[in-house]
Amino acid sequence: MSMMTRIEQALSQPFMVADSATAPPRLMAAMRHAVFPGGARIRPQLCIAVAKACGEDAPDLTNAAAASIELLHCASLVHDDMPCFDDADTRRGQTTVHKQFGEPLALLTGDALIVLAYQTLARAGARHPHRLARLLMTVCEGTGTPDGIVAGQAWECEPRVQLGRYQRAKTGALFVASTCAGAQAAGTDPEPWRRLGDALGEAYQVADDIRDVMGADQLGKPVGQDAQHGRPSTAADLGLLGAVDYFRKLIQSAVQSVPACASREAMQQLVLHESERLLPQSACDQIAVQHAASQRRAVA
Amino acid sequence: MSMMTRIEQALSQPFMVADSATAPPRLMAAMRHAVFPGGARIRPQLCIAVAKACGEDAPDLTNAAAASIELLHCASLVHDDMPCFDDADTRRGQTTVHKQFGEPLALLTGDALIVLAYQTLARAGARHPHRLARLLMTVCEGTGTPDGIVAGQAWECEPRVQLGRYQRAKTGALFVASTCAGAQAAGTDPEPWRRLGDALGEAYQVADDIRDVMGADQLGKPVGQDAQHGRPSTAADLGLLGAVDYFRKLIQSAVQSVPACASREAMQQLVLHESERLLPQSACDQIAVQHAASQRRAVA
Repeated sequence: MSMMTRIEQALSQPFMVADSATAPPRLMAAMRHAVFPGGARIRPQLCIAVAKACGEDAPDLTNAAAASIELLHCASLVHDDMPCFDDADTRRGQTTVHKQFGEPLALLTGDALIVLAYQTLARAGARHPHRLARLLMTVCEGTGTPDGIVAGQAWECEPRVQLGRYQRAKTGALFVASTCAGAQAAGTDPEPWRRLGDALGEAYQVADDIRDVMGADQLGKPVGQDAQHGRPSTAADLGLLGAVDYFRKLIQSAVQSVPACASREAMQQLVLHESERLLPQSACDQIAVQHAASQRRAVA
Repeated sequence: MSMMTRIEQALSQPFMVADSATAPPRLMAAMRHAVFPGGARIRPQLCIAVAKACGEDAPDLTNAAAASIELLHCASLVHDDMPCFDDADTRRGQTTVHKQFGEPLALLTGDALIVLAYQTLARAGARHPHRLARLLMTVCEGTGTPDGIVAGQAWECEPRVQLGRYQRAKTGALFVASTCAGAQAAGTDPEPWRRLGDALGEAYQVADDIRDVMGADQLGKPVGQDAQHGRPSTAADLGLLGAVDYFRKLIQSAVQSVPACASREAMQQLVLHESERLLPQSACDQIAVQHAASQRRAVA
Protein backbone atom coordinates (compact mmCIF):
# COMPACT_ATOMS: atom_id res chain seq x y z
CA MET A 1 0.00 0.00 0.00
CA SER A 2 1.37 3.44 -0.89
CA MET A 3 2.07 5.97 1.85
CA MET A 4 -0.73 8.27 0.64
CA THR A 5 -3.31 5.48 0.48
CA ARG A 6 -2.34 4.44 3.98
CA ILE A 7 -2.78 8.01 5.25
CA GLU A 8 -6.17 8.52 3.60
CA GLN A 9 -7.39 5.21 5.04
CA ALA A 10 -6.12 6.17 8.49
CA LEU A 11 -8.00 9.47 8.22
CA SER A 12 -11.22 7.84 7.03
CA GLN A 13 -11.30 5.41 9.96
CA PRO A 14 -12.23 7.95 12.69
CA PHE A 15 -15.12 9.24 10.58
CA MET A 16 -16.70 5.80 10.39
CA VAL A 17 -17.16 5.87 14.18
CA ALA A 18 -17.95 9.57 14.51
CA ASP A 19 -20.47 9.64 11.71
CA SER A 20 -23.17 7.42 13.26
CA ALA A 21 -26.89 7.83 12.58
CA THR A 22 -27.17 10.05 15.66
CA ALA A 23 -24.58 12.67 14.60
CA PRO A 24 -25.71 16.08 13.23
CA PRO A 25 -25.34 15.65 9.43
CA ARG A 26 -24.18 19.19 8.63
CA LEU A 27 -21.45 19.05 11.29
CA MET A 28 -20.20 15.77 9.87
CA ALA A 29 -20.23 17.22 6.33
CA ALA A 30 -18.27 20.26 7.52
CA MET A 31 -15.73 18.04 9.28
CA ARG A 32 -15.20 15.98 6.12
CA HIS A 33 -14.91 19.19 4.09
CA ALA A 34 -12.11 20.29 6.43
CA VAL A 35 -10.17 17.04 6.08
CA PHE A 36 -10.84 15.80 2.50
CA PRO A 37 -9.36 16.26 0.01
CA GLY A 38 -6.18 17.03 1.90
CA GLY A 39 -2.99 18.87 1.13
CA ALA A 40 0.43 17.22 1.08
CA ARG A 41 -0.29 15.39 4.37
CA ILE A 42 3.32 16.08 5.29
CA ARG A 43 2.79 15.61 9.06
CA PRO A 44 1.32 12.09 8.83
CA GLN A 45 3.94 11.23 6.19
CA LEU A 46 6.68 12.23 8.62
CA CYS A 47 5.06 10.34 11.48
CA ILE A 48 4.75 7.11 9.51
CA ALA A 49 8.22 7.42 7.97
CA VAL A 50 9.80 7.81 11.42
CA ALA A 51 7.79 4.90 12.84
CA LYS A 52 9.07 2.71 9.98
CA ALA A 53 12.64 3.90 10.54
CA CYS A 54 12.24 2.90 14.21
CA GLY A 55 11.18 -0.65 13.34
CA GLU A 56 7.39 -0.13 13.42
CA ASP A 57 5.68 -3.02 15.24
CA ALA A 58 2.22 -1.51 15.88
CA PRO A 59 0.97 -0.03 12.60
CA ASP A 60 -2.51 0.56 14.04
CA LEU A 61 -0.98 2.86 16.66
CA THR A 62 1.19 4.63 14.07
CA ASN A 63 -1.89 5.18 11.89
CA ALA A 64 -3.84 6.60 14.85
CA ALA A 65 -0.96 8.93 15.78
CA ALA A 66 -0.55 10.09 12.17
CA ALA A 67 -4.30 10.62 11.73
CA SER A 68 -4.67 12.45 15.04
CA ILE A 69 -1.93 14.92 14.14
CA GLU A 70 -3.46 15.60 10.70
CA LEU A 71 -6.92 16.07 12.28
CA LEU A 72 -5.44 18.62 14.70
CA HIS A 73 -3.73 20.37 11.80
CA CYS A 74 -7.02 20.52 9.87
CA ALA A 75 -8.81 21.84 12.97
CA SER A 76 -6.27 24.65 13.26
CA LEU A 77 -6.74 25.56 9.59
CA VAL A 78 -10.53 25.81 10.02
CA HIS A 79 -10.19 28.16 13.00
CA ASP A 80 -7.33 30.18 11.48
CA ASP A 81 -9.41 30.80 8.35
CA MET A 82 -12.32 32.29 10.31
CA PRO A 83 -13.17 36.00 10.08
CA CYS A 84 -11.53 36.90 13.40
CA PHE A 85 -8.19 35.65 12.01
CA ASP A 86 -7.47 35.40 8.28
CA ASP A 87 -11.06 35.71 7.02
CA ALA A 88 -10.00 33.49 4.12
CA ASP A 89 -12.37 32.48 1.35
CA THR A 90 -10.35 29.56 0.03
CA ARG A 91 -8.11 26.83 1.40
CA ARG A 92 -6.46 24.03 -0.57
CA GLY A 93 -8.25 25.45 -3.61
CA GLN A 94 -11.76 24.98 -2.21
CA THR A 95 -14.16 27.13 -0.18
CA THR A 96 -13.22 27.49 3.50
CA VAL A 97 -15.47 25.80 6.06
CA HIS A 98 -17.02 29.00 7.43
CA LYS A 99 -17.75 30.26 3.89
CA GLN A 100 -19.43 26.97 2.99
CA PHE A 101 -21.18 26.10 6.27
CA GLY A 102 -21.29 29.37 8.25
CA GLU A 103 -19.29 30.58 11.22
CA PRO A 104 -21.08 28.64 13.98
CA LEU A 105 -20.46 25.30 12.28
CA ALA A 106 -16.85 26.24 11.46
CA LEU A 107 -16.21 26.95 15.13
CA LEU A 108 -17.74 23.61 16.13
CA THR A 109 -15.97 21.76 13.30
CA GLY A 110 -12.60 22.79 14.70
CA ASP A 111 -13.63 21.73 18.20
CA ALA A 112 -15.03 18.41 17.01
CA LEU A 113 -11.88 17.64 14.99
CA ILE A 114 -9.69 18.27 18.04
CA VAL A 115 -11.77 15.83 20.06
CA LEU A 116 -11.82 13.32 17.20
CA ALA A 117 -8.02 13.39 17.18
CA TYR A 118 -7.86 12.31 20.83
CA GLN A 119 -10.66 9.79 20.32
CA THR A 120 -8.62 8.23 17.54
CA LEU A 121 -5.58 7.94 19.79
CA ALA A 122 -7.66 6.52 22.64
CA ARG A 123 -9.20 3.80 20.48
CA ALA A 124 -5.86 2.50 19.17
CA GLY A 125 -4.14 3.17 22.49
CA ALA A 126 -6.42 0.72 24.28
CA ARG A 127 -4.42 -2.07 22.61
CA HIS A 128 -1.08 -0.47 23.56
CA PRO A 129 -1.65 0.85 27.10
CA HIS A 130 2.04 1.33 27.88
CA ARG A 131 2.59 3.61 24.89
CA LEU A 132 -0.62 5.63 25.08
CA ALA A 133 0.11 8.19 27.82
CA ARG A 134 3.45 9.34 26.39
CA LEU A 135 2.07 9.45 22.85
CA LEU A 136 -0.87 11.50 24.08
CA MET A 137 1.47 13.91 25.89
CA THR A 138 3.52 14.38 22.72
CA VAL A 139 0.44 15.17 20.64
CA CYS A 140 -0.90 17.54 23.33
CA GLU A 141 2.45 19.34 23.57
CA GLY A 142 2.40 19.91 19.82
CA THR A 143 -1.09 21.38 19.98
CA GLY A 144 -1.77 23.29 23.20
CA THR A 145 0.01 25.35 25.83
CA PRO A 146 2.70 26.41 26.52
CA ASP A 147 4.38 25.82 23.12
CA GLY A 148 1.96 24.08 20.75
CA ILE A 149 0.27 25.41 17.59
CA VAL A 150 -2.61 27.03 19.50
CA ALA A 151 -0.09 28.95 21.64
CA GLY A 152 1.78 29.82 18.43
CA GLN A 153 -1.34 31.32 16.89
CA ALA A 154 -2.00 33.17 20.17
CA TRP A 155 1.36 34.96 19.90
CA GLU A 156 -0.34 37.00 17.15
CA CYS A 157 -2.50 38.51 19.92
CA GLU A 158 0.45 39.61 22.07
CA PRO A 159 1.94 43.12 21.98
CA ARG A 160 5.52 41.75 21.82
CA VAL A 161 6.59 38.62 19.96
CA GLN A 162 9.87 36.80 19.42
CA LEU A 163 9.79 35.66 15.79
CA GLY A 164 11.60 32.38 16.49
CA ARG A 165 9.38 31.35 19.38
CA TYR A 166 6.26 32.31 17.42
CA GLN A 167 7.26 30.23 14.40
CA ARG A 168 8.50 27.24 16.40
CA ALA A 169 5.16 27.11 18.21
CA LYS A 170 2.87 28.05 15.31
CA THR A 171 4.21 25.47 12.89
CA GLY A 172 7.25 23.68 14.30
CA ALA A 173 5.44 22.21 17.32
CA LEU A 174 3.20 19.90 15.29
CA PHE A 175 6.14 18.81 13.10
CA VAL A 176 8.05 17.89 16.25
CA ALA A 177 4.97 16.00 17.47
CA SER A 178 4.87 14.18 14.12
CA THR A 179 8.43 12.87 14.26
CA CYS A 180 8.36 12.15 18.02
CA ALA A 181 4.96 10.42 17.88
CA GLY A 182 6.23 8.21 15.05
CA ALA A 183 9.10 7.03 17.24
CA GLN A 184 6.82 6.56 20.26
CA ALA A 185 4.19 4.63 18.31
CA ALA A 186 7.02 2.19 17.52
CA GLY A 187 7.90 2.02 21.22
CA THR A 188 11.22 3.86 20.87
CA ASP A 189 12.82 7.02 22.27
CA PRO A 190 11.55 10.14 20.47
CA GLU A 191 14.46 12.45 21.31
CA PRO A 192 16.75 11.62 18.33
CA TRP A 193 13.89 12.68 16.02
CA ARG A 194 13.06 16.01 17.62
CA ARG A 195 15.53 18.11 15.58
CA LEU A 196 14.16 16.82 12.26
CA GLY A 197 10.63 17.97 13.17
CA ASP A 198 11.89 21.24 14.55
CA ALA A 199 14.01 22.22 11.52
CA LEU A 200 11.46 21.09 8.96
CA GLY A 201 8.65 22.86 10.80
CA GLU A 202 10.55 26.13 10.91
CA ALA A 203 11.47 25.74 7.22
CA TYR A 204 7.81 25.23 6.44
CA GLN A 205 6.86 28.48 8.20
CA VAL A 206 9.67 30.43 6.52
CA ALA A 207 8.57 29.14 3.11
CA ASP A 208 5.02 30.18 3.96
CA ASP A 209 6.21 33.71 4.79
CA ILE A 210 8.17 33.91 1.52
CA ARG A 211 5.23 32.71 -0.59
CA ASP A 212 2.94 35.17 1.19
CA VAL A 213 5.18 38.07 0.07
CA MET A 214 5.86 36.71 -3.43
CA GLY A 215 2.13 36.55 -4.12
CA ALA A 216 2.58 33.25 -5.90
CA ASP A 217 1.06 30.72 -3.57
CA GLN A 218 0.19 27.41 -5.16
CA LEU A 219 -1.39 25.98 -2.02
CA GLY A 220 -4.77 27.60 -2.58
CA LYS A 221 -4.41 30.26 0.13
CA PRO A 222 -4.84 34.01 -0.25
CA VAL A 223 -1.57 35.99 -0.25
CA GLY A 224 -0.33 39.20 1.39
CA GLN A 225 -1.96 38.17 4.68
CA ASP A 226 1.07 38.66 6.93
CA ALA A 227 1.59 42.32 6.10
CA GLN A 228 -2.18 42.93 6.12
CA HIS A 229 -2.53 41.46 9.63
CA GLY A 230 0.80 42.89 10.88
CA ARG A 231 2.07 39.40 11.64
CA PRO A 232 5.69 38.56 12.40
CA SER A 233 7.35 37.21 9.25
CA THR A 234 10.84 36.02 8.36
CA ALA A 235 10.51 37.63 4.95
CA ALA A 236 9.78 41.00 6.58
CA ASP A 237 12.62 40.50 9.09
CA LEU A 238 15.43 39.27 6.81
CA GLY A 239 14.24 40.39 3.39
CA LEU A 240 13.29 37.87 0.69
CA LEU A 241 16.86 36.86 -0.11
CA GLY A 242 17.78 36.49 3.56
CA ALA A 243 14.67 34.39 4.14
CA VAL A 244 15.55 32.09 1.22
CA ASP A 245 19.07 31.63 2.64
CA TYR A 246 17.64 30.83 6.05
CA PHE A 247 15.18 28.35 4.49
CA ARG A 248 18.06 26.51 2.80
CA LYS A 249 20.01 26.32 6.06
CA LEU A 250 17.00 24.85 7.84
CA ILE A 251 16.53 22.19 5.16
CA GLN A 252 20.25 21.33 5.42
CA SER A 253 19.90 21.01 9.17
CA ALA A 254 16.82 18.80 8.79
CA VAL A 255 18.62 16.52 6.32
CA GLN A 256 21.68 16.20 8.57
CA SER A 257 19.61 15.54 11.69
CA VAL A 258 18.16 12.25 10.45
CA PRO A 259 19.60 9.64 12.84
CA ALA A 260 21.46 6.59 11.55
CA CYS A 261 18.87 4.01 10.48
CA ALA A 262 18.18 1.67 7.57
CA SER A 263 15.91 4.20 5.86
CA ARG A 264 18.09 7.27 6.48
CA GLU A 265 18.52 7.99 2.78
CA ALA A 266 14.80 7.65 2.00
CA MET A 267 14.02 9.99 4.88
CA GLN A 268 16.50 12.56 3.60
CA GLN A 269 14.91 12.29 0.16
CA LEU A 270 11.50 12.96 1.72
CA VAL A 271 12.89 16.16 3.28
CA LEU A 272 14.43 17.33 0.00
CA HIS A 273 11.28 16.49 -1.94
CA GLU A 274 9.23 18.48 0.58
CA SER A 275 11.71 21.37 0.35
CA GLU A 276 11.21 21.57 -3.44
CA ARG A 277 7.43 21.46 -2.99
CA LEU A 278 7.52 24.22 -0.37
CA LEU A 279 9.84 26.54 -2.25
CA PRO A 280 10.79 25.38 -5.75
CA GLN A 281 14.33 26.07 -6.90
CA SER A 282 12.84 28.16 -9.73
CA ALA A 283 11.25 30.51 -7.17
CA CYS A 284 14.56 30.86 -5.32
CA ASP A 285 16.31 31.70 -8.60
CA GLN A 286 13.66 34.28 -9.42
CA ILE A 287 14.17 35.94 -6.02
CA ALA A 288 17.96 36.03 -6.57
CA VAL A 289 17.54 37.59 -10.04
CA GLN A 290 15.13 40.22 -8.73
CA HIS A 291 17.49 41.02 -5.88
CA ALA A 292 20.47 41.42 -8.22
CA ALA A 293 18.41 43.72 -10.49
CA SER A 294 17.38 45.92 -7.57
CA GLN A 295 21.04 46.09 -6.42
CA ARG A 296 22.06 47.21 -9.92
CA ARG A 297 19.32 49.87 -9.90
CA ALA A 298 20.55 51.10 -6.51
CA VAL A 299 24.14 51.44 -7.82
CA ALA A 300 23.01 53.19 -11.02
CA MET B 1 -10.21 18.69 52.48
CA SER B 2 -13.63 19.90 51.32
CA MET B 3 -14.98 18.82 47.94
CA MET B 4 -14.77 22.37 46.56
CA THR B 5 -11.18 22.89 47.72
CA ARG B 6 -10.23 19.59 46.13
CA ILE B 7 -11.83 20.63 42.83
CA GLU B 8 -10.17 24.06 42.74
CA GLN B 9 -6.79 22.47 43.46
CA ALA B 10 -7.35 19.88 40.74
CA LEU B 11 -8.18 22.70 38.31
CA SER B 12 -5.14 24.78 39.29
CA GLN B 13 -2.73 21.91 38.71
CA PRO B 14 -2.90 21.88 34.86
CA PHE B 15 -2.24 25.62 34.75
CA MET B 16 1.03 25.23 36.64
CA VAL B 17 2.36 23.15 33.75
CA ALA B 18 0.68 25.06 30.93
CA ASP B 19 1.69 28.49 32.19
CA SER B 20 5.46 28.23 31.70
CA ALA B 21 7.68 31.19 30.90
CA THR B 22 7.35 30.40 27.19
CA ALA B 23 3.53 30.59 27.01
CA PRO B 24 1.79 33.66 25.52
CA PRO B 25 0.73 35.65 28.62
CA ARG B 26 -2.59 36.97 27.29
CA LEU B 27 -3.71 33.48 26.22
CA MET B 28 -2.93 32.15 29.68
CA ALA B 29 -4.82 35.05 31.29
CA ALA B 30 -7.83 34.39 29.05
CA MET B 31 -7.76 30.68 29.91
CA ARG B 32 -7.71 31.46 33.64
CA HIS B 33 -10.52 33.97 33.14
CA ALA B 34 -12.59 31.19 31.55
CA VAL B 35 -12.01 28.75 34.41
CA PHE B 36 -11.74 30.90 37.59
CA PRO B 37 -13.81 31.74 39.51
CA GLY B 38 -16.05 28.86 38.55
CA GLY B 39 -19.73 28.14 38.82
CA ALA B 40 -21.14 25.28 40.87
CA ARG B 41 -18.53 22.83 39.47
CA ILE B 42 -21.33 20.27 39.39
CA ARG B 43 -19.60 18.01 36.84
CA PRO B 44 -16.36 17.54 38.82
CA GLN B 45 -18.44 17.17 42.00
CA LEU B 46 -20.37 14.33 40.38
CA CYS B 47 -17.20 12.71 39.07
CA ILE B 48 -15.47 12.74 42.46
CA ALA B 49 -18.60 11.66 44.35
CA VAL B 50 -19.03 8.64 42.07
CA ALA B 51 -15.33 7.72 42.34
CA LYS B 52 -15.65 7.77 46.14
CA ALA B 53 -18.83 5.67 45.99
CA CYS B 54 -16.88 3.16 43.86
CA GLY B 55 -14.10 2.84 46.46
CA GLU B 56 -11.68 5.40 45.01
CA ASP B 57 -8.10 4.08 45.04
CA ALA B 58 -6.40 6.52 42.65
CA PRO B 59 -7.36 10.06 43.72
CA ASP B 60 -4.82 11.60 41.32
CA LEU B 61 -6.65 9.98 38.41
CA THR B 62 -10.07 11.03 39.76
CA ASN B 63 -8.81 14.60 40.09
CA ALA B 64 -7.48 14.57 36.53
CA ALA B 65 -10.78 13.18 35.20
CA ALA B 66 -12.82 15.73 37.17
CA ALA B 67 -10.58 18.62 36.09
CA SER B 68 -10.53 17.54 32.44
CA ILE B 69 -14.33 17.47 32.29
CA GLU B 70 -14.63 20.91 33.89
CA LEU B 71 -12.00 22.32 31.48
CA LEU B 72 -14.01 20.95 28.54
CA HIS B 73 -17.16 22.48 30.00
CA CYS B 74 -15.43 25.87 30.36
CA ALA B 75 -14.12 25.60 26.78
CA SER B 76 -17.65 25.04 25.50
CA LEU B 77 -18.92 28.08 27.43
CA VAL B 78 -16.22 30.32 25.91
CA HIS B 79 -17.12 29.23 22.37
CA ASP B 80 -20.90 29.28 22.98
CA ASP B 81 -20.67 32.86 24.27
CA MET B 82 -18.97 34.10 21.08
CA PRO B 83 -20.76 36.43 18.65
CA CYS B 84 -21.59 33.68 16.15
CA PHE B 85 -23.59 31.89 18.88
CA ASP B 86 -25.00 33.70 21.93
CA ASP B 87 -22.97 36.91 21.63
CA ALA B 88 -23.12 37.09 25.43
CA ASP B 89 -21.56 39.94 27.40
CA THR B 90 -21.53 38.21 30.77
CA ARG B 91 -21.01 34.71 32.15
CA ARG B 92 -20.99 33.72 35.82
CA GLY B 93 -21.47 37.39 36.59
CA GLN B 94 -18.25 38.51 34.88
CA THR B 95 -17.30 39.68 31.39
CA THR B 96 -17.18 36.90 28.78
CA VAL B 97 -13.78 35.96 27.38
CA HIS B 98 -14.30 37.50 23.92
CA LYS B 99 -15.55 40.76 25.46
CA GLN B 100 -12.52 40.94 27.73
CA PHE B 101 -9.79 39.59 25.42
CA GLY B 102 -11.25 39.85 21.90
CA GLU B 103 -12.61 37.21 19.54
CA PRO B 104 -9.31 35.76 18.30
CA LEU B 105 -8.12 34.96 21.82
CA ALA B 106 -11.53 33.62 22.82
CA LEU B 107 -11.44 31.18 19.91
CA LEU B 108 -7.92 30.05 20.89
CA THR B 109 -8.81 29.91 24.59
CA GLY B 110 -11.51 27.33 23.89
CA ASP B 111 -9.10 25.31 21.74
CA ALA B 112 -6.32 25.48 24.33
CA LEU B 113 -8.67 24.43 27.15
CA ILE B 114 -9.80 21.38 25.16
CA VAL B 115 -6.18 20.35 24.67
CA LEU B 116 -5.35 21.10 28.33
CA ALA B 117 -8.14 18.73 29.37
CA TYR B 118 -6.54 15.85 27.47
CA GLN B 119 -3.08 16.83 28.64
CA THR B 120 -4.31 16.61 32.23
CA LEU B 121 -5.69 13.13 31.65
CA ALA B 122 -2.50 12.01 29.92
CA ARG B 123 -0.27 13.18 32.75
CA ALA B 124 -2.20 11.33 35.48
CA GLY B 125 -2.94 8.41 33.15
CA ALA B 126 0.78 7.65 32.77
CA ARG B 127 0.63 6.23 36.32
CA HIS B 128 -2.52 4.20 35.54
CA PRO B 129 -1.96 2.90 32.02
CA HIS B 130 -4.69 0.26 32.18
CA ARG B 131 -7.38 2.80 33.02
CA LEU B 132 -6.31 5.62 30.69
CA ALA B 133 -7.69 4.51 27.31
CA ARG B 134 -11.22 3.82 28.55
CA LEU B 135 -11.30 7.00 30.62
CA LEU B 136 -10.14 8.96 27.62
CA MET B 137 -12.85 7.38 25.45
CA THR B 138 -15.51 8.31 27.99
CA VAL B 139 -14.38 11.93 28.12
CA CYS B 140 -14.17 12.11 24.30
CA GLU B 141 -17.66 10.62 23.92
CA GLY B 142 -19.04 13.29 26.24
CA THR B 143 -17.41 16.04 24.20
CA GLY B 144 -17.23 15.25 20.50
CA THR B 145 -19.07 13.37 17.79
CA PRO B 146 -21.50 11.70 17.39
CA ASP B 147 -23.30 12.51 20.67
CA GLY B 148 -21.11 14.80 22.82
CA ILE B 149 -21.63 18.45 23.75
CA VAL B 150 -20.05 19.79 20.54
CA ALA B 151 -22.47 17.68 18.50
CA GLY B 152 -25.28 18.92 20.77
CA GLN B 153 -24.41 22.52 20.04
CA ALA B 154 -24.18 21.66 16.33
CA TRP B 155 -27.81 20.49 16.32
CA GLU B 156 -28.66 24.21 16.52
CA CYS B 157 -27.28 24.49 12.97
CA GLU B 158 -29.50 21.72 11.55
CA PRO B 159 -32.81 22.38 9.79
CA ARG B 160 -34.58 19.62 11.80
CA VAL B 161 -33.87 18.73 15.43
CA GLN B 162 -35.24 16.19 17.89
CA LEU B 163 -35.48 18.04 21.19
CA GLY B 164 -34.50 15.01 23.29
CA ARG B 165 -31.43 14.14 21.23
CA TYR B 166 -30.36 17.79 21.17
CA GLN B 167 -30.60 18.16 24.95
CA ARG B 168 -29.04 14.80 25.75
CA ALA B 169 -26.05 15.71 23.61
CA LYS B 170 -25.82 19.41 24.43
CA THR B 171 -25.80 18.97 28.21
CA GLY B 172 -26.45 15.36 29.18
CA ALA B 173 -23.39 13.95 27.45
CA LEU B 174 -20.87 15.64 29.74
CA PHE B 175 -22.89 14.71 32.83
CA VAL B 176 -22.81 11.07 31.67
CA ALA B 177 -19.06 11.42 31.14
CA SER B 178 -18.76 12.83 34.69
CA THR B 179 -20.45 9.90 36.42
CA CYS B 180 -18.89 7.24 34.15
CA ALA B 181 -15.38 8.73 34.41
CA GLY B 182 -15.70 8.77 38.20
CA ALA B 183 -16.39 5.03 38.19
CA GLN B 184 -13.61 4.34 35.67
CA ALA B 185 -11.04 6.42 37.56
CA ALA B 186 -11.73 4.05 40.47
CA GLY B 187 -11.22 1.07 38.18
CA THR B 188 -14.88 -0.02 38.18
CA ASP B 189 -17.65 -0.55 35.62
CA PRO B 190 -19.22 2.78 34.59
CA GLU B 191 -22.55 1.41 33.32
CA PRO B 192 -24.50 1.48 36.64
CA TRP B 193 -23.76 5.22 36.83
CA ARG B 194 -24.85 6.19 33.32
CA ARG B 195 -28.52 6.83 34.14
CA LEU B 196 -27.64 9.25 36.96
CA GLY B 197 -25.60 11.42 34.61
CA ASP B 198 -28.19 11.17 31.86
CA ALA B 199 -31.18 12.18 34.02
CA LEU B 200 -29.34 14.94 35.86
CA GLY B 201 -27.93 16.33 32.62
CA GLU B 202 -31.35 16.48 30.99
CA ALA B 203 -32.80 18.07 34.16
CA TYR B 204 -30.06 20.67 34.00
CA GLN B 205 -30.95 21.57 30.41
CA VAL B 206 -34.70 21.70 31.16
CA ALA B 207 -34.03 24.02 34.14
CA ASP B 208 -31.90 26.18 31.86
CA ASP B 209 -34.77 26.43 29.36
CA ILE B 210 -37.22 27.36 32.13
CA ARG B 211 -34.95 30.04 33.59
CA ASP B 212 -34.37 31.45 30.10
CA VAL B 213 -38.14 32.00 29.69
CA MET B 214 -38.76 33.21 33.25
CA GLY B 215 -36.16 35.93 32.80
CA ALA B 216 -34.88 35.36 36.31
CA ASP B 217 -31.53 33.76 35.84
CA GLN B 218 -29.25 33.87 38.83
CA LEU B 219 -26.32 32.24 37.04
CA GLY B 220 -25.08 35.46 35.47
CA LYS B 221 -26.26 34.65 31.94
CA PRO B 222 -28.45 36.82 29.69
CA VAL B 223 -32.07 35.58 29.35
CA GLY B 224 -34.53 35.16 26.47
CA GLN B 225 -31.78 33.67 24.31
CA ASP B 226 -33.62 30.50 23.23
CA ALA B 227 -36.57 32.32 21.65
CA GLN B 228 -34.24 34.97 20.18
CA HIS B 229 -32.08 32.32 18.49
CA GLY B 230 -35.02 30.02 17.63
CA ARG B 231 -33.47 27.22 19.65
CA PRO B 232 -35.33 24.06 20.65
CA SER B 233 -36.57 24.41 24.24
CA THR B 234 -38.57 22.22 26.62
CA ALA B 235 -40.31 25.32 27.95
CA ALA B 236 -41.47 26.21 24.44
CA ASP B 237 -42.48 22.61 23.74
CA LEU B 238 -44.36 21.72 26.94
CA GLY B 239 -45.18 25.13 28.37
CA LEU B 240 -43.65 26.34 31.63
CA LEU B 241 -45.81 24.14 33.86
CA GLY B 242 -45.19 21.06 31.72
CA ALA B 243 -41.47 21.76 31.76
CA VAL B 244 -41.46 22.05 35.57
CA ASP B 245 -43.30 18.71 35.85
CA TYR B 246 -40.80 17.11 33.51
CA PHE B 247 -37.89 18.58 35.48
CA ARG B 248 -39.25 17.01 38.71
CA LYS B 249 -39.63 13.61 37.03
CA LEU B 250 -36.02 13.75 35.83
CA ILE B 251 -34.75 14.59 39.33
CA GLN B 252 -36.81 11.69 40.74
CA SER B 253 -35.30 9.39 38.13
CA ALA B 254 -31.78 10.62 38.96
CA VAL B 255 -32.32 10.05 42.69
CA GLN B 256 -33.68 6.54 42.14
CA SER B 257 -30.92 5.60 39.71
CA VAL B 258 -28.13 5.85 42.30
CA PRO B 259 -26.82 2.28 42.65
CA ALA B 260 -26.59 0.59 46.04
CA CYS B 261 -23.39 1.78 47.72
CA ALA B 262 -22.22 3.05 51.11
CA SER B 263 -22.67 6.68 50.09
CA ARG B 264 -26.03 6.25 48.32
CA GLU B 265 -27.85 8.65 50.63
CA ALA B 266 -25.17 11.36 50.37
CA MET B 267 -25.28 11.04 46.59
CA GLN B 268 -29.05 11.41 46.55
CA GLN B 269 -28.72 14.50 48.75
CA LEU B 270 -26.25 15.95 46.25
CA VAL B 271 -28.83 15.48 43.48
CA LEU B 272 -31.63 17.09 45.51
CA HIS B 273 -29.38 19.97 46.54
CA GLU B 274 -28.46 20.55 42.91
CA SER B 275 -32.13 20.38 41.94
CA GLU B 276 -32.97 23.18 44.38
CA ARG B 277 -30.07 25.25 43.08
CA LEU B 278 -31.13 24.72 39.46
CA LEU B 279 -34.80 25.49 39.97
CA PRO B 280 -35.72 26.58 43.50
CA GLN B 281 -39.05 25.36 44.88
CA SER B 282 -40.09 29.03 45.18
CA ALA B 283 -39.72 29.44 41.39
CA CYS B 284 -41.81 26.31 40.76
CA ASP B 285 -44.51 27.66 43.08
CA GLN B 286 -44.47 30.98 41.27
CA ILE B 287 -44.95 29.23 37.91
CA ALA B 288 -47.88 27.19 39.32
CA VAL B 289 -49.56 30.36 40.69
CA GLN B 290 -49.12 32.22 37.39
CA HIS B 291 -50.52 29.23 35.49
CA ALA B 292 -53.59 29.02 37.76
CA ALA B 293 -54.18 32.76 37.33
CA SER B 294 -53.99 32.52 33.54
CA GLN B 295 -56.43 29.55 33.62
CA ARG B 296 -58.88 31.64 35.67
CA ARG B 297 -58.56 34.51 33.19
CA ALA B 298 -59.23 32.11 30.32
CA VAL B 299 -62.43 30.79 32.02
CA ALA B 300 -63.60 34.33 32.89
